[in-house]
Amino acid sequence: MGTACFGVDIGGTAVKMGLVDEEGNILRDVSFPSPRDPEVMFDEIARQANQLRDAFPDYACLGMGVGVPGPVPDQARVHGCVNLGWGMVDVSGELGRRTGLPVRVENDANLAAFGEMWQGAGRGHRNLVMLTVGTGVGGGVIADGRIVSGWAGAGGEVGHMPVPWHQDWPCTCGKCGCLEVTASATGIVRSARQFSPFDQMEDLTARDVFDAARSGSADAQRVVKDAANCLGYAAAIIGCVVNPELFVVGGGVSAAGEMLLAPVRQAYLQWVFPPCRGAAFRLASLGNQAGIYGGAGLFFC
Amino acid sequence: MGTACFGVDIGGTAVKMGLVDEEGNILRDVSFPSPRDPEVMFDEIARQANQLRDAFPDYACLGMGVGVPGPVPDQARVHGCVNLGWGMVDVSGELGRRTGLPVRVENDANLAAFGEMWQGAGRGHRNLVMLTVGTGVGGGVIADGRIVSGWAGAGGEVGHMPVPWHQDWPCTCGKCGCLEVTASATGIVRSARQFSPFDQMEDLTARDVFDAARSGSADAQRVVKDAANCLGYAAAIIGCVVNPELFVVGGGVSAAGEMLLAPVRQAYLQWVFPPCRGAAFRLASLGNQAGIYGGAGLFFC
Repeated sequence: MGTACFGVDIGGTAVKMGLVDEEGNILRDVSFPSPRDPEVMFDEIARQANQLRDAFPDYACLGMGVGVPGPVPDQARVHGCVNLGWGMVDVSGELGRRTGLPVRVENDANLAAFGEMWQGAGRGHRNLVMLTVGTGVGGGVIADGRIVSGWAGAGGEVGHMPVPWHQDWPCTCGKCGCLEVTASATGIVRSARQFSPFDQMEDLTARDVFDAARSGSADAQRVVKDAANCLGYAAAIIGCVVNPELFVVGGGVSAAGEMLLAPVRQAYLQWVFPPCRGAAFRLASLGNQAGIYGGAGLFFC
Repeated sequence: MGTACFGVDIGGTAVKMGLVDEEGNILRDVSFPSPRDPEVMFDEIARQANQLRDAFPDYACLGMGVGVPGPVPDQARVHGCVNLGWGMVDVSGELGRRTGLPVRVENDANLAAFGEMWQGAGRGHRNLVMLTVGTGVGGGVIADGRIVSGWAGAGGEVGHMPVPWHQDWPCTCGKCGCLEVTASATGIVRSARQFSPFDQMEDLTARDVFDAARSGSADAQRVVKDAANCLGYAAAIIGCVVNPELFVVGGGVSAAGEMLLAPVRQAYLQWVFPPCRGAAFRLASLGNQAGIYGGAGLFFC
């Protein structure tokens, strides 16, 4: 008889969940559109969990680890999820009651970092920081093998650190000049629109900007360099605070690969405290299954 | 029979050590000038420890926690202490062999933070950051009750994070524009020297600058405001990374009290991610005994 755990990643558009064995194999995973009503969502997660358990009767199930898009200070309750229209929700209580399993809850970006540590690009490392560069910039800090959730569950919210770039550009958080204002996909598009022909392009994406840079556009190259520079500067600051061995870079923008990582590394080396220079930068490897691995990993690590 | 532990703070000029009971009372403490030779130093620490144990025969001694002025990645070996002229030294092995006790080693700034958590200004909090503002700016990060040592033992080296102040002023670390270049006692003196009559004053100290600010000097007030602003900005960044509930401010410059803390708080609120705004700022309360408490606390917490 083996052991297995559930990893559940609750997102604004879909819930992804899987049953994962102790070796880190996903035995089976499912996903479904996120119901608006949390009661309906929890019922459906429990129903799917029971089906998965029935399908693998040879595995003892140890628990369920759940990622949610909001702050979780106590591994149980989320204090508001803007994307889901939730206020305070006792995710651990609701799912524990429905499944009879121990349930641990974490912020989704933190859980993705934990998943990358257990089974992804961070395997074998106990001090790492994940930077998720997409529409915004998310983060997850792992210190000595444990998630740094922080007091209010806002540990790893590195996208909202102030940086000396575009200090008059507003951020969704209400401040101006946050890291994600410059270094996210949104920021890259906004920066590119300062130059023609990007200023006229409808539906411009960060990928278009990277493609243009690859094709030789000096303006696009400047935009990419600037965003990467900003990200490397932020990583250097993070290095001085928690001194990780590894930065794992994920999210949509990380599809640019070395074109992004190379200048990020260079900027990091320029700004970080010299004893922290040995840190590596690697692309995330688990894609949108990082949360499933992370959730299960909470019980296996 | 009670239990007790040793806390030992190895500094560049003196070794301070004490025997501390489980309630956090220092039963007795001693200090002696730091011998240049590490062998001589360890012999003397062991000799003092034996004397202290003999003086308190009713206490079972659980271990010894040691702070050293250098990076300690593994709770055992320090990877170089500039102030002591040490290379890599196995402090845990050397002192364990001489005392027969379990010995845990940490960077001194991290250990001071831990001491403030256990018995000082941070009592009752498990997520806190200590900022030690003296000749330089040191730091210690505590996440969920544990020291964040980092991969190379450089966790909490916040004095060397880049900040957008005085970016052409060199730092002792080899970079320019680090936090401590502006926000330390050294930085405050250097900033003040830009203005008369400070430019002519020999032996000018940060305290003189605070005194002048208190007496109404607009230039001194500007210097103090600028340093506090820089410190609050750095705290805001730290807030976005590890989200502490509390910042404990210690070191010589913290003697300025609310004259320093008030503008630091104000700057923090301006720059931090809004969900982190609830963090408090308090003065350290253990002075130069924080390391003794921290060392003993490693075994009691």
